[in-house]
Amino acid sequence: MAVLHGDNPTHAIVMVGLPARGKTYVARKIMRYLSWLGHKTQLFNVGNYRREHIGSLQAHGFFDPANPDGVRQRTDMALMALDDMLRWFGEGGEVAIYDATNSTRERRRLIQEHCERANARVIFIESICDEAIVEVNVRNTKLDSPDYVGIDPDVAVADFRARIAHYARAYEPVDEQEGSYIKLIDVGRQVNVNLIHGYLGSRLVSFLVNLHNVPRPIWLTRHGQTEYNVDGRIGGNSSLSEWGRRYAQNLKRFYDEVIAPQGPPEVWTSTLVRTHETASILGRQTLQWRALNEIEAGICDGLTYAEIKDRYPEEWRARSRDKTGYRYPQGESYMDVIQRAEPVILELERQKKPVMIISHQAVLRSIYGYLMGHEPDQIPHLSIPLHTVLELTPKAYGLAEQRIQLGPAVPAHAGPSS
Amino acid sequence: MAVLHGDNPTHAIVMVGLPARGKTYVARKIMRYLSWLGHKTQLFNVGNYRREHIGSLQAHGFFDPANPDGVRQRTDMALMALDDMLRWFGEGGEVAIYDATNSTRERRRLIQEHCERANARVIFIESICDEAIVEVNVRNTKLDSPDYVGIDPDVAVADFRARIAHYARAYEPVDEQEGSYIKLIDVGRQVNVNLIHGYLGSRLVSFLVNLHNVPRPIWLTRHGQTEYNVDGRIGGNSSLSEWGRRYAQNLKRFYDEVIAPQGPPEVWTSTLVRTHETASILGRQTLQWRALNEIEAGICDGLTYAEIKDRYPEEWRARSRDKTGYRYPQGESYMDVIQRAEPVILELERQKKPVMIISHQAVLRSIYGYLMGHEPDQIPHLSIPLHTVLELTPKAYGLAEQRIQLGPAVPAHAGPSS
Repeated sequence: MAVLHGDNPTHAIVMVGLPARGKTYVARKIMRYLSWLGHKTQLFNVGNYRREHIGSLQAHGFFDPANPDGVRQRTDMALMALDDMLRWFGEGGEVAIYDATNSTRERRRLIQEHCERANARVIFIESICDEAIVEVNVRNTKLDSPDYVGIDPDVAVADFRARIAHYARAYEPVDEQEGSYIKLIDVGRQVNVNLIHGYLGSRLVSFLVNLHNVPRPIWLTRHGQTEYNVDGRIGGNSSLSEWGRRYAQNLKRFYDEVIAPQGPPEVWTSTLVRTHETASILGRQTLQWRALNEIEAGICDGLTYAEIKDRYPEEWRARSRDKTGYRYPQGESYMDVIQRAEPVILELERQKKPVMIISHQAVLRSIYGYLMGHEPDQIPHLSIPLHTVLELTPKAYGLAEQRIQLGPAVPAHAGPSS
Repeated sequence: MAVLHGDNPTHAIVMVGLPARGKTYVARKIMRYLSWLGHKTQLFNVGNYRREHIGSLQAHGFFDPANPDGVRQRTDMALMALDDMLRWFGEGGEVAIYDATNSTRERRRLIQEHCERANARVIFIESICDEAIVEVNVRNTKLDSPDYVGIDPDVAVADFRARIAHYARAYEPVDEQEGSYIKLIDVGRQVNVNLIHGYLGSRLVSFLVNLHNVPRPIWLTRHGQTEYNVDGRIGGNSSLSEWGRRYAQNLKRFYDEVIAPQGPPEVWTSTLVRTHETASILGRQTLQWRALNEIEAGICDGLTYAEIKDRYPEEWRARSRDKTGYRYPQGESYMDVIQRAEPVILELERQKKPVMIISHQAVLRSIYGYLMGHEPDQIPHLSIPLHTVLELTPKAYGLAEQRIQLGPAVPAHAGPSS
């Protein structure tokens, strides 16, 4: 499914940076982004190996470079993760993300040598942050870490600061001689890039320059029920039904009571009538994206599922076999929808304001799939019901989800969902 | 036509750098790229204003910062170009590229102030090169400059070096306080980015990291004639005709005699049968791109132009009115083809090897249009005949074109071209 055009597809993305520089935040974002684009991507977090094999509750002395026992054990864990990564490349893995401090030149040379054996190209991603960001990171993510379960927050912060200090003593920034790197300064404010070319590299850079760490909610909803929904027809460009218009009114109430008080959001719709009709009652300026239009059903546009099964039994079967890769004749596949939704994702990452998206089932499955970390194969099977708002709010490393059904559930139309 | 999603669409891209740092090369590349993507883009080259209004033959003393008369005249030219740029923004211009040395902080502040009045966002692009690249640039581009017409090459080089020295004395690199910038070090080897976010910024960065200045030829050809071509039908996935197979043989001969001796090229095809059949005789490994497939004609796929005109007269008229924006029902428009061909363009920019592309009329029009600097409105009208190789070889700031017809011309099928 993946298309790493002409590139060597095997890459190791190696995180570099002191603790609390947002490495794991960035690593998980990259993981979600590349998986979502269809690349076989895997995260190797050395801290998790240490927690699993040695134990999570280690006081800062364990991380002291002058503690030979700690050094040996930590090196063992790094090598164990590295071995797993190489094994995974051997099984057809494409992009591995190796998440650890990797803060010395020697450690990075070791990783380079291992990756060369697997014929994997290494890209270092070094995160450098000013003290204010570090402070926020420590408070927001480290206090909830399994390393500090049941520890007094002030003690935990002091211990973690001591752990950072141990690493800082041995820290060597990545330099030009080490090959390809992307340096992120203050989570995307400044980005320095060395020897980054090609499809994967340029995708990564354009993704990373849009990153920020300003938390804000996102709301996703489908348009209200349409005349086509009532008839069980897919595609088309019909107007809202009576039930759909009621949903728009309920959405307006929800908007006034829940969304607007959090500051005026960006409101994005598709270019189709049914999302405009749903949004218009909000009385807000909207941004219309063609990239938010529903999957194009080609020759099946305007048909019911029963009609499709009847007229195009071969197509019906092909779609059941591979709903992600299946492309409607003269229409689109879910993979096509994912590709065209990518600029929406970049803009969503860039936006620091709350965003509300009023769109369609297949494209919202794709966007929701990105946000919640689903792979393409799962995306056509995610539940995005009519007349329901999905509220996604930031938590450490991800989003918390709440589903708010507004008004009575609308019965699903005949046949399997589109 | 342009979609600068949610962004302020008005941008001034301001080049910065000493003479012979490839600023104009980069500026023209950006110009071609953004115009091709449908953005209203214009280049303002201060050197051209100077050549037009003051005269091209100025000895280096004119550029000496200690020469008050030269300073005043050069400032006048910079302001004249700036005024024109602001006027152009007022007329609906989107992205202006302001090409000059702009090598002092004071000059850049002046530009910033002007742009703020037009509500245009400034992005500085600073080009920094090592001496080896400067040497090549001087020899390759400056000796052909109108500034040195009829001057002995050695004298010209010495004068140009003196001109660089004048600028170098006053040169101040762009710093963080000046806002958004992209620094290109050695034409894309290293890229440093400050405060670059959003659609246009991330597009630019991912374009610029792929730039290089290694000259290499590109060959474009359509597949050989197909059974569908013989019948005058569009789209489909048919095999080569007898004439088409002969073209493949002629192409093989051309490959052996002209292309192969220049070093083995990358060979790219679409995923359709007719390009594979054309390429297979070359006996080379090929890279297959879905992005190189022919424009999808939707409900018109498999029809002749006469049948389309007959069955869908409204569609026929709509297409005649706007061939670039017109989208076949359940199919694609030329703008869609351009968008999906963009990864091919990035990969084409990145490749340092010769590249041979065997593809289809609409998508080759798009790629050729990018390479030769045509805007979307012209692209559907570019001539890419069957059984002809387009050979594009680098010259200063662009490509020289040669068309090699292999075998007898194949008569065009009925109706206007697709």
